[in-house]
Amino acid sequence: MIIVMRVNATAREIAAVVERVEGMGFHAHLSEGEERTIIGVIGDERPVDPGLFERLEGVERAVPILRPFKLASRDFHPKDSIFSINGIKIGGKGLCIMAGPCAVESRQQILEVAHAVKEAGAHVLRGGAFKPRTSPYSFQGLGLRGLELLAEAREETGLPIVTEVMAPEAVSMVAHYADILQVGARNMQNFALLQAVGQTNKPVLLKRGMMATIEELLMAAEYILSNGNSRVILCERGIRTFEKYTRNTLDINAIPAIKQLTHLPVIADPSHGTGKWDLVAPVAKACIAAGADGLIVEVHPDPQQALSDQAQQLRPEVFAKLMDDLRALAPPLGREL
Amino acid sequence: MIIVMRVNATAREIAAVVERVEGMGFHAHLSEGEERTIIGVIGDERPVDPGLFERLEGVERAVPILRPFKLASRDFHPKDSIFSINGIKIGGKGLCIMAGPCAVESRQQILEVAHAVKEAGAHVLRGGAFKPRTSPYSFQGLGLRGLELLAEAREETGLPIVTEVMAPEAVSMVAHYADILQVGARNMQNFALLQAVGQTNKPVLLKRGMMATIEELLMAAEYILSNGNSRVILCERGIRTFEKYTRNTLDINAIPAIKQLTHLPVIADPSHGTGKWDLVAPVAKACIAAGADGLIVEVHPDPQQALSDQAQQLRPEVFAKLMDDLRALAPPLGREL
Amino acid sequence: MIIVMRVNATAREIAAVVERVEGMGFHAHLSEGEERTIIGVIGDERPVDPGLFERLEGVERAVPILRPFKLASRDFHPKDSIFSINGIKIGGKGLCIMAGPCAVESRQQILEVAHAVKEAGAHVLRGGAFKPRTSPYSFQGLGLRGLELLAEAREETGLPIVTEVMAPEAVSMVAHYADILQVGARNMQNFALLQAVGQTNKPVLLKRGMMATIEELLMAAEYILSNGNSRVILCERGIRTFEKYTRNTLDINAIPAIKQLTHLPVIADPSHGTGKWDLVAPVAKACIAAGADGLIVEVHPDPQQALSDQAQQLRPEVFAKLMDDLRALAPPLGREL
Amino acid sequence: MIIVMRVNATAREIAAVVERVEGMGFHAHLSEGEERTIIGVIGDERPVDPGLFERLEGVERAVPILRPFKLASRDFHPKDSIFSINGIKIGGKGLCIMAGPCAVESRQQILEVAHAVKEAGAHVLRGGAFKPRTSPYSFQGLGLRGLELLAEAREETGLPIVTEVMAPEAVSMVAHYADILQVGARNMQNFALLQAVGQTNKPVLLKRGMMATIEELLMAAEYILSNGNSRVILCERGIRTFEKYTRNTLDINAIPAIKQLTHLPVIADPSHGTGKWDLVAPVAKACIAAGADGLIVEVHPDPQQALSDQAQQLRPEVFAKLMDDLRALAPPLGREL
Repeated sequence: MIIVMRVNATAREIAAVVERVEGMGFHAHLSEGEERTIIGVIGDERPVDPGLFERLEGVERAVPILRPFKLASRDFHPKDSIFSINGIKIGGKGLCIMAGPCAVESRQQILEVAHAVKEAGAHVLRGGAFKPRTSPYSFQGLGLRGLELLAEAREETGLPIVTEVMAPEAVSMVAHYADILQVGARNMQNFALLQAVGQTNKPVLLKRGMMATIEELLMAAEYILSNGNSRVILCERGIRTFEKYTRNTLDINAIPAIKQLTHLPVIADPSHGTGKWDLVAPVAKACIAAGADGLIVEVHPDPQQALSDQAQQLRPEVFAKLMDDLRALAPPLGREL
Repeated sequence: MIIVMRVNATAREIAAVVERVEGMGFHAHLSEGEERTIIGVIGDERPVDPGLFERLEGVERAVPILRPFKLASRDFHPKDSIFSINGIKIGGKGLCIMAGPCAVESRQQILEVAHAVKEAGAHVLRGGAFKPRTSPYSFQGLGLRGLELLAEAREETGLPIVTEVMAPEAVSMVAHYADILQVGARNMQNFALLQAVGQTNKPVLLKRGMMATIEELLMAAEYILSNGNSRVILCERGIRTFEKYTRNTLDINAIPAIKQLTHLPVIADPSHGTGKWDLVAPVAKACIAAGADGLIVEVHPDPQQALSDQAQQLRPEVFAKLMDDLRALAPPLGREL
Repeated sequence: MIIVMRVNATAREIAAVVERVEGMGFHAHLSEGEERTIIGVIGDERPVDPGLFERLEGVERAVPILRPFKLASRDFHPKDSIFSINGIKIGGKGLCIMAGPCAVESRQQILEVAHAVKEAGAHVLRGGAFKPRTSPYSFQGLGLRGLELLAEAREETGLPIVTEVMAPEAVSMVAHYADILQVGARNMQNFALLQAVGQTNKPVLLKRGMMATIEELLMAAEYILSNGNSRVILCERGIRTFEKYTRNTLDINAIPAIKQLTHLPVIADPSHGTGKWDLVAPVAKACIAAGADGLIVEVHPDPQQALSDQAQQLRPEVFAKLMDDLRALAPPLGREL
Repeated sequence: MIIVMRVNATAREIAAVVERVEGMGFHAHLSEGEERTIIGVIGDERPVDPGLFERLEGVERAVPILRPFKLASRDFHPKDSIFSINGIKIGGKGLCIMAGPCAVESRQQILEVAHAVKEAGAHVLRGGAFKPRTSPYSFQGLGLRGLELLAEAREETGLPIVTEVMAPEAVSMVAHYADILQVGARNMQNFALLQAVGQTNKPVLLKRGMMATIEELLMAAEYILSNGNSRVILCERGIRTFEKYTRNTLDINAIPAIKQLTHLPVIADPSHGTGKWDLVAPVAKACIAAGADGLIVEVHPDPQQALSDQAQQLRPEVFAKLMDDLRALAPPLGREL
């Protein structure tokens, strides 16, 4: 941390800051500039809030130097993390494609789409059983019945399944069925939930909140990692901006940026990232070109009849075409599919 | 809902849209413009997602006409809702001021501040027992012990208490101690939690998410209301924008805007809305001038030693001065304090 | 500037950074932390881009310490600047209210509204002759004829006039008529225009761009000040955020924040800040309560027939009522009106 | 336009709205819903501001149906526009790569980089002679001398040149030297400048403002097109969001979205879109994968010694490697390079 004193800070104020810094077990390192004094805080500042120093007399502001995450940081784990999930690898040279409907709606629907995405080459089946919906009057998912249907689809196709868990008390039930636990964007800072999934032995797909910075995403991952679960997959799914032509603004910069900062694998969700089915394929390709380790894509046998996300789900044949395109794109990018 | 057809939509496409609209039990109302056809959907469109129509062939977009909330809407409840909480009224002419520390830290701390804010004229004591923190390495609150200390402070001062609940399974425990249940900004769309607090008989202080629109805030309130709990207090606490000089950007427009849209009382949180103690008083006055029904303000006996939010908590004497200023300001605004 | 080296920076990289710093005439101050080395740059860093150091080998990032504005800074000019414009004072205890139509539309319109706002107590008449419009098909203002009509209104009422100038080559013409030159939000970083108005002897009303940080606003002011014109009035007029219920989000925090950072007077524009006439009065009062030195408000004799900004212009009688409310509000805030 | 009446609008209010609509030469089309009446405005609504109707008694809001741009719209010009600039095609199957330094700094610098980017396969040379800088104390470009040096570099390499023009009065001078006139992000709504470049016969590279919606970008293009200049190249260069790890957030969605809405060619600027040289290559590839017709990339012979944008300019060898990668990527995307 660097503490910047005000132009007119007194010697007494400076001494009081130094005393506080040293009282917390840090070393204080003074540097007298032409206009103002700067105090370096030497030590592991991560647990310290800059506000603590900003509140002292004569302080203008305090600037953290170390990034606040540690287990998630590439600084201390330079090599990429690669996980194996039911034989599927994620985080290495190969691309991992997850696909399936927004929500599980019926036995026929999920089995049909599971076979379709498997045939097109997907590695993991997605499908929501518990749905976070903006309106209490919208379809909220089939719940436990949805989980059972996902398990049946896995049995039929061999695809591992990823599905969302929305509350700490539901974690053990969802973990009983799912191969990967999804924490949704709206729950990225639901800390009780992060702790609960951190205490399971299932990999976690952690979606970036629509209002979350890259650093906050990595801090949310840190909650899971520090509870003992090292298999966290990060997912860029679009952030909220002033632009309303698309549902969200997929932050393409975040893909290579996150990979610089962390060793964890990063996938992208072009379905929520755009909100429009006819933008999904170009943006999906862009995410792979930017270095994403995989994708999660919404596919529905008949999007017009879907109970949610009608505008963004792909028909199976459009998804199959996207997979063909990705197969052609992977080699010049040094990836495998 | 208004469905806008593309310029080159065919008669067959238009007919298919009309058939779908009528198949859902609505009336379809055609209007042929110079460039394109528009189809009005007559009926209660609220549960329908515009994406459903946008996915049909020949459709350019679908525009919702009715606001999606109903119980929260002033359209169907024109008069202001006024609640009484342990004898404290909120939502009428009187201003309701809630004050206290970010977190309960010790018996001495909470009792000292409770007496101080009571003496300054506050009506409700705030204090966090369960704290949502960005970092897993930060102070997470005293938990149950914090609730007990809040109850003791209430006994000593007579002030009702408001405190945050972070997980559905903790609702009954927190409701046992608290007079008002707070749902924090990060949990505004934690739908499992909204349902749980909606099933209690305790008033709920619902904070706007930092990236939530006004409409989404009212939809979150609708979750609570539709679960049977009619006592919801809305709180504007700042949104996230590109401006980083302040912690958040308090959306002053939202205060009169929300009051136009809903009958529910609206208070403001200038502490989180600014993140800087020396901006709290001017912004607090601004919120009252804009029509807020009250405030929630962080006050700590010694902010430099606080375990969280050091930069934004007021010293008791600064809070007392703010209360004096508000007492002078209330009459010309037609309010009482 | 503080230069933060990477965890694994080598001694040679550190030495190269120090050499570069000293080669630029600064002193370098090394501080070895537990994890990484930090290099302080001692001297007036203001003209230096942090990117310059971030590009050197082994550097993680560079953090500016000094704020980049100097003439606008309160650090070097602690007392409030107070200007006198045709006998009207701005920046002191008194509030300065500017009012008038979005655009000058006709002789009758501008004279009628000039008399109305004068009678209600306004100090300055506003009105656009050159209008920046999003669409090339919209009314673009009366141009020179509009300036002549404003001058006539000044003659009749004695009110000084403020009007927008949109291009450097128009500055001398507009300055011939106007008492205050307005630089609009879309031109806040039109540097050619800032230099041109900086070379006049007319006060400048500089509106914050909808995408501009507080710091960028002060840097825009610095352009004017450094060209020799010391009379700059800053104006908060709303920023662009994800919230679309209102036209812009008035940044109420910015009002006291800007006053902390600069000695220049700050006014607010609740008309553009909200975009809805029925939100103008509550937000106008909020701005004054937050410490603004005045307001600029759109008033039109018949907003329904206006050629622009129909939704946000006040009728004269609504403006008169707002002035009455402000007169009641000023004394408890320590202001005069 | 669709006019939505309030729930309790009276018959008299509805009649007055209809009268106003018809008085403007439109047809009014009434549709009585269960809760409220809706009035369709039939005719070319483009020049009409919704605020005009929103101001009438009993109106809740007015929703535009037609997009406000016409000349830029694909609705009326379904085929892609393809331009030829000094023999270079833009907008067709081939990719157009523009490269060069942020600013022209010296004869040696611009000639060296011109040869380097030519050899790497670039089609157009970029370089700023007039630089918009946030600070008045920063390097502002070489001005006319910079234009002369660019012309010399063109003569030596045969590359056409693109350079920014910042003020209407400079347009004829810059157009004398440049092959493509660049309108920068900060000037996207400098309407005087848009009109001036619209009256030249030089192609215009129009950069999206950092806070401009896609629709506003197309309206800015409409200013140029409606002044008679049909050769407009749009450029996505990143928007401003809450995320500060990168300089801007490149809006990857905008690339296919803009191509849906308009026939004009669209290129991307990954240098400003990221602000960090080591993110430029992955994001550049992503832009091409998303369908961009080309790129504009900052390249400098020695970025550490550059006078601006040090952090984001590529070394020539890194640019050459990017060109190699793009050549491998183009065929599977159906593009040529």
